[in-house]
Amino acid sequence: MDERLEKQFDFIREIDKEKFIVRQTYLTGAARQENDAEHAWHIAVMALLLAEHANEKVDVLKVVAMLLIHDLVEIDAGDTYAYANVPKEAQHEKEARGADRLFGLLPEDQGQKLRALWDEFEAAETAEARFAHTMDNLQPMMQNHMTGGAMWKERGIALSQVLRRNARTAEGSGVLWDYAKKTFLAPHLGRELRDDRK
Amino acid sequence: MDERLEKQFDFIREIDKEKFIVRQTYLTGAARQENDAEHAWHIAVMALLLAEHANEKVDVLKVVAMLLIHDLVEIDAGDTYAYANVPKEAQHEKEARGADRLFGLLPEDQGQKLRALWDEFEAAETAEARFAHTMDNLQPMMQNHMTGGAMWKERGIALSQVLRRNARTAEGSGVLWDYAKKTFLAPHLGRELRDDRK
Repeated sequence: MDERLEKQFDFIREIDKEKFIVRQTYLTGAARQENDAEHAWHIAVMALLLAEHANEKVDVLKVVAMLLIHDLVEIDAGDTYAYANVPKEAQHEKEARGADRLFGLLPEDQGQKLRALWDEFEAAETAEARFAHTMDNLQPMMQNHMTGGAMWKERGIALSQVLRRNARTAEGSGVLWDYAKKTFLAPHLGRELRDDRK
Repeated sequence: MDERLEKQFDFIREIDKEKFIVRQTYLTGAARQENDAEHAWHIAVMALLLAEHANEKVDVLKVVAMLLIHDLVEIDAGDTYAYANVPKEAQHEKEARGADRLFGLLPEDQGQKLRALWDEFEAAETAEARFAHTMDNLQPMMQNHMTGGAMWKERGIALSQVLRRNARTAEGSGVLWDYAKKTFLAPHLGRELRDDRK
């Protein structure tokens, strides 16, 4: 028993580091940027409340577990800004090495279970993974809206980039994607949308 | 539908403030103190992994949901240090007012559900609530251990205070409480334990 507990707490201690992985999203008042642990907490609560809007019926515990662990690999791989020009394969390889090390700290059965959950999230092919991605994409959009589009302005992000980034967000929830476009994007990037259509 | 979404996102935006509620627990390296959102995330992951050690079989989704929302009331009531001499009734009343306001932002059915979940956590009378409290108590103990007992030393916390504070921790999991005493407490507060017994 003690060996199993040791492994579980090795992992639990190690993931404290996720609290130091800073993201490119501002908190309320743009006082500081968010970290991965705060982000994961926020989208897990969102999933509890918004699962009713998923396109397909989802296993809420599975979605929440997926969201709680989806960014752990960034402890080793670091956060990659959604609009950075990093080749997807190189990034995924770095993250997969992080997954090997981190989930490898756990007792074998739990390590395999969490690794499978992370792989499922990455593949985005199940109802749970699609809805989890919708949560993961909507939250920074909402935070950007709350801070007057601060990060979009700072980085000169264009509506076309946001739309490309969210090409699959509606696959988790059409209702939420429509709401997000209207509520979070239009006030900040709407003018550009009109310009594009001239 | 839009009215329901408005209410859900009013709540989701509001809880961003939990990321600013600073706790009396240091992170790895004692670089800074933890906030409530990070703490909630950490213990939710712990619950996923450690539920197998609960004294009674628990509904894991219920435990995780409870842990994700258990400190939201501190957005209004602030964090009270576990070893502060604050009268329990006054603190609970402040937190209950916070619960009224915060959960009141949600659509009525969801607000009632989350309020009931928080009340259940506070009452600590169900298997899920007891196990949730075990997670809530073990994590700061582990963090204190990781930082060489920094906060206990700074505040002059005695073993007797930690034991009093954890009088019911074993009710969620005897296995985990035994492990925690041996692993997290003994190296830092063990000497004092021996002194007490002289």
